[in-house]
Amino acid sequence: MTPYELIKHKREGLALAPGEISAFLGAYTAGELPDYQMSAMLMAVFFRGLDPAELGAWTSAMLRSGEVLDLSDIPGTKVDKHSTGGVGDKVSLPLAPLAAACGVKVPMISGRGLGHTGGTLDKLESIPGFRVDLSVARYRELVREVGACLIGQTATLAPADKKLYALRDVTATVDCLPLIASSIMSKKLAEGIDALVLDVKVGSGAFMKKPEDARALARTMVGIGKSMGKRVTAVLTDMDQPLGRKVGNALEVEESLEVLRGEGPADLVEVTVELTAEMLVLAGLVADLHAGRARVRQAISDGSGLAKFAEIVAAQGGDAEAVRDPSRLPRAKAQSEVRARNAGVVQAIQCEEVGLAGVELGAGRRKTDDQLDYAVGFTLLKKVGERVEAGEPLVRVHHNGQAALASVEARLERAYQLGEGQPAKRPLIVERIAG
Amino acid sequence: MTPYELIKHKREGLALAPGEISAFLGAYTAGELPDYQMSAMLMAVFFRGLDPAELGAWTSAMLRSGEVLDLSDIPGTKVDKHSTGGVGDKVSLPLAPLAAACGVKVPMISGRGLGHTGGTLDKLESIPGFRVDLSVARYRELVREVGACLIGQTATLAPADKKLYALRDVTATVDCLPLIASSIMSKKLAEGIDALVLDVKVGSGAFMKKPEDARALARTMVGIGKSMGKRVTAVLTDMDQPLGRKVGNALEVEESLEVLRGEGPADLVEVTVELTAEMLVLAGLVADLHAGRARVRQAISDGSGLAKFAEIVAAQGGDAEAVRDPSRLPRAKAQSEVRARNAGVVQAIQCEEVGLAGVELGAGRRKTDDQLDYAVGFTLLKKVGERVEAGEPLVRVHHNGQAALASVEARLERAYQLGEGQPAKRPLIVERIAG
Repeated sequence: MTPYELIKHKREGLALAPGEISAFLGAYTAGELPDYQMSAMLMAVFFRGLDPAELGAWTSAMLRSGEVLDLSDIPGTKVDKHSTGGVGDKVSLPLAPLAAACGVKVPMISGRGLGHTGGTLDKLESIPGFRVDLSVARYRELVREVGACLIGQTATLAPADKKLYALRDVTATVDCLPLIASSIMSKKLAEGIDALVLDVKVGSGAFMKKPEDARALARTMVGIGKSMGKRVTAVLTDMDQPLGRKVGNALEVEESLEVLRGEGPADLVEVTVELTAEMLVLAGLVADLHAGRARVRQAISDGSGLAKFAEIVAAQGGDAEAVRDPSRLPRAKAQSEVRARNAGVVQAIQCEEVGLAGVELGAGRRKTDDQLDYAVGFTLLKKVGERVEAGEPLVRVHHNGQAALASVEARLERAYQLGEGQPAKRPLIVERIAG
Repeated sequence: MTPYELIKHKREGLALAPGEISAFLGAYTAGELPDYQMSAMLMAVFFRGLDPAELGAWTSAMLRSGEVLDLSDIPGTKVDKHSTGGVGDKVSLPLAPLAAACGVKVPMISGRGLGHTGGTLDKLESIPGFRVDLSVARYRELVREVGACLIGQTATLAPADKKLYALRDVTATVDCLPLIASSIMSKKLAEGIDALVLDVKVGSGAFMKKPEDARALARTMVGIGKSMGKRVTAVLTDMDQPLGRKVGNALEVEESLEVLRGEGPADLVEVTVELTAEMLVLAGLVADLHAGRARVRQAISDGSGLAKFAEIVAAQGGDAEAVRDPSRLPRAKAQSEVRARNAGVVQAIQCEEVGLAGVELGAGRRKTDDQLDYAVGFTLLKKVGERVEAGEPLVRVHHNGQAALASVEARLERAYQLGEGQPAKRPLIVERIAG
């Protein structure tokens, strides 16, 4: 069938054969199929969806558009974790060393922040000297020897996804479940992993606001993994308020170190322990999730996770001393406080407002080439359910005299909703979907 | 709103404001909005449709993308006829002179054949010397003085439609009712007409196979006309078998002359009289349709229609003698016959097969730059409901020794379905939809 016929078929709700999908995406990646035909196909997929067989073929075609790493010669089970993104979500930072300390091999390819959510690479780069642009050879070496390596997306992995994402971004076809699922899975499976833990955020601060949507995305991704012979477990976790208390690159490294020292905030610790425990289960290192949690908590209490983080930082060119002495991380010159106008109990914190306040301050990006100020950010002194008196500080702003400060403070004030009475408690670990 | 937001809005099923549609299409025509965003919008329109206000704005934006002729200084009511296309549909040829002979001004901008349906311009050009590429000034002059002028689409009329149609053609968004309706109406309204008769073909040989689809298209176009202050009447006519008995460019001119001489086949005469009568009604020249039909039949019997056709042909550089002596039209060198294998009654004639046989023979085009052989074509010796004996000829093929002859004959044989008993009689004039 011609590209025209394939678009028409999909438009009519008919299923495409795996070979047809592979040819269509292959031609697009090779520059032989124009953007305008692909965007018509994407919009048809938005309306008609992709069935499991089509989705497998679609993901596989994106995966095979570039290099697929083979780490099979490295002993141990290679397990990565992916999050659909949220504010204050620095879980990867303590999780990677904890999992590695427990014996999992963690080949982690992460992204940068864009819009209101942060990115693991930016947080890591706030550690002086830390490099995320290692060669594939060095990456393999570190996964083998250190047990974990955290780098950025390379141009050779799933290039079709990069091209397709740029097109989706300008044709209103980003928020389409099968396209989201195949985009994530093609990039992750190109890493050469054996298994994957997916942290699917759900709530007002997440891409998926409703549990049923998050569940559908989770099931779709788990299904793709299964069809490609990979063990995938998805955990739905709450993102109705920022995770932890610190937002901003160096501040989030600082809070990650608190977790590894056994001093982290309860919500961040709980999510980190849960997801790391899932990795241990997938790697077959523990009998069950219960044992996994205990093993991870032990790696916190015995300091092996912290030591592993120092080892990773050193291996990737960063200042390992900063792991023991966080004052070596970039620090903002000044602090200000956003105070409550009235007394009350925090009913909600709008993640998007907090995230966008961070972007305004320079902690995040509007455009991909924006420069970041690693030191700036916020400490959320009050979280949902906590009581505040009139005039008491809600947020501490760490800044370097940015012109946008007043606007940032106003945004943070708007982000907080105060009221009377205790808001309903939301579970942090919402649901588990295993393959 | 940005183009992205407009696509997303439409995708979500929300209505776009007239100004938004106008800006989106304006940017596209100006080359400021890329094809890939337009194709995403087109596919979203395919799924979500356009409401009457949106459709009016969409058509108006296409109309205003180029020159809109103003014929208001020409006395009389300017009325055109448009057909959605069929096989053997040469109605425009006798209709234009008949309407003009009755006092209607007929500014007619027609198209060429592509695929299995023929085009008015190709048929006219089979008359030696006939030119369809007149200037707009000459076109105005002939509408004023002769009463009718038949030319081709100019580059300055509704250029957005041309650009959009080319994109729809490669993105599987051609068969989308609001896009079809706005395409037709924008081109027709750019002609500077006061009123329009639409011949919406329905049946197995038409673009719209089902009466409900044809009715929906007719109502949509009548609605667009109304919203722009134009009187539009749509007539649904049958296209379950070719119209008339002759198919092929010069052959169709010949049959048109038969109609004007009062010797045309009944079905072709009935449709021609009906549509011309509707033009007379819209022009206010007759009290009602009944009087209109009588007036048109009079223009046939008194020879004024035939004389007007000769006048048009002469004015457009053609051999007016050919109107009186059709033997001056291109004639094929040879004839062959397709004969019935068994006796029976013709149950159906597949229009598409007949049309494609014509294309194979050189009477129509596969690609826009294909050269035509004006002389070749078919005489359908048997039509639906007529009895044929074994070995009796079904079709006479007029050819010039084309290599494809055997394949053409086989196709024509396939086009005929013979059987026992009289097939159900289908009304030729199916329905009338007035504004």
